[in-house]
Amino acid sequence: MSTKDPRSAQEKVELLQGTLDLLILRTLVLGRAHGHAIAQAIERNSDDVLQVEQGSLYPALHRLIKRGWISAEEGTSENNRRAKFYRLTAKGRKQLALETTKWDKFARAIAGVLRPADQESES
Amino acid sequence: MSTKDPRSAQEKVELLQGTLDLLILRTLVLGRAHGHAIAQAIERNSDDVLQVEQGSLYPALHRLIKRGWISAEEGTSENNRRAKFYRLTAKGRKQLALETTKWDKFARAIAGVLRPADQESES
Repeated sequence: MSTKDPRSAQEKVELLQGTLDLLILRTLVLGRAHGHAIAQAIERNSDDVLQVEQGSLYPALHRLIKRGWISAEEGTSENNRRAKFYRLTAKGRKQLALETTKWDKFARAIAGVLRPADQESES
Repeated sequence: MSTKDPRSAQEKVELLQGTLDLLILRTLVLGRAHGHAIAQAIERNSDDVLQVEQGSLYPALHRLIKRGWISAEEGTSENNRRAKFYRLTAKGRKQLALETTKWDKFARAIAGVLRPADQESES
């Protein structure tokens, strides 16, 4: 996953594995979805800031299945094609709550450093 | 860098290289500091959620010097020992502004996925 940035490919923000996992779990809260739809939902809900590449998405989905946080099943997509659908498990739902708390804590910690109430430093 | 979490070592959140770089640049805004003081400031300002390990800190400092974002100089620490002090350069100050904007955008994007205004999904 990366953020869209017209300036240069080097400016791409690589996402932590764990962060992509969290976004996938969150996206599956409202129901099963196929891989492409998961990527699209993440892109749309981030106002197209995050871009989910297939090379990151499918390894992440396999990782989540292995951990028992999501399950995969065959189904038929809206345009009547066979597709693999992913669904959140009960274990995945618990993990999502944990991971969300962890992300919130992490983001608050970074914000605390970027905008400290007071900061000492030798000058 | 990792977040302190009593549960297990596996739960540690590894920080992106770029995020640690950003926190170091931010910490040097108010003046020069030696390595240990930088790590302490990041830990303190994050309410001890983030922990900066030497194994991440020193490679990051060298990376930032190489890019011309910080400079290093010999000096004397508060307990009268010779120490290496790091200082933000003009180029580093510009980079800090860029990186802060990028982080804010990224954090907002994640928040958008975690708490979407509306979300469609097949169920």
